Amino acid sequence: MNEKYQKIIDAAIKVFAKKGFFHAKVADVAKQADVADGTIYLYFKNKDDLLISIFENSMDNFLSQAKKTIDTKESIKDKLKAFLTLHLTLLEKNQKLATVLQLELRSSHKFMTEYKAEKFFQYLRLIEELIIEGQQQGLFKPNLNPHIVTRAIFGAVDELALEWVLMKKKSFVLEEAAEQLFQMLFEGIRL
Amino acid sequence: MNEKYQKIIDAAIKVFAKKGFFHAKVADVAKQADVADGTIYLYFKNKDDLLISIFENSMDNFLSQAKKTIDTKESIKDKLKAFLTLHLTLLEKNQKLATVLQLELRSSHKFMTEYKAEKFFQYLRLIEELIIEGQQQGLFKPNLNPHIVTRAIFGAVDELALEWVLMKKKSFVLEEAAEQLFQMLFEGIRL
Repeated sequence: MNEKYQKIIDAAIKVFAKKGFFHAKVADVAKQADVADGTIYLYFKNKDDLLISIFENSMDNFLSQAKKTIDTKESIKDKLKAFLTLHLTLLEKNQKLATVLQLELRSSHKFMTEYKAEKFFQYLRLIEELIIEGQQQGLFKPNLNPHIVTRAIFGAVDELALEWVLMKKKSFVLEEAAEQLFQMLFEGIRL
Repeated sequence: MNEKYQKIIDAAIKVFAKKGFFHAKVADVAKQADVADGTIYLYFKNKDDLLISIFENSMDNFLSQAKKTIDTKESIKDKLKAFLTLHLTLLEKNQKLATVLQLELRSSHKFMTEYKAEKFFQYLRLIEELIIEGQQQGLFKPNLNPHIVTRAIFGAVDELALEWVLMKKKSFVLEEAAEQLFQMLFEGIRL
């Protein structure tokens, strides 16, 4: 990942968040990144590839931070809490990226149906492993299906993030949502 | 709502689920409904209006069934469980409708950002009223923000529905998911 690649990704996040993915043009991204149009095509196949790359890039960042954070915590409880808090606070700190991930990416039919989002499954596996470990430690209800629990947790986090992105006047901060969400989900799954 | 209106709605659900909203044409819907193209425009402004009408129509059906179901149950616990189960089992029974609601509707940038989905807010209010009532009865944790709880519940239900729609081989039935989800969410919010 060199500097120019990152510069283009950052420019694309700004442009897609502002204009919407559908209306944005590769030329807009080039202008924002202050590079020639042709330079974009040295790194990315097309506009769709730029969108997918934003997703992969941000997931790489998130996953490496999440793994580090999880490793610094002792208990499953603290690991799970740190994970949820990290997810929501990162979005809060990067509102333009949040808009692209929560709204523009989801509007892409191609992304939702054709693209195999391996990094999304890595995200889910991080949660699922914590759930399974918690069950093995006798901490979580053994009858709960870890897969369903994982999806429910992701769905809850993701919906709050989406609502927050769509809200013109922010009626809650995501850090508060993370705290409430964690309390509710943890109490729900613990034995 | 007359018979022809309903016939066109049903045809649009089939066509949008099969071809995808973006690629489907109003003429395809007319053919499927066995009416002239012009007839569609007597009832609907355009293709977007058809999609929105599918949403409103299915929400009307769901909301009236949900209210009836909630009224037949005594306790908040049973009301909440019946609500979640109804949501997921209705989608399971109407797989084409589920595809349109979970996938095609969400791909519509217009729907997500411009359309004021009043009926969706009615859906959320049904849950939120149960949460508030449960808190007033001393059944649910008083410190949880009913708004955040409501969104978290919707997000969890919705994510499981989306995953189920996207799954080629269904690895779980939605009724099982509803059972697990209810157990986890109820235990999470109760005092």
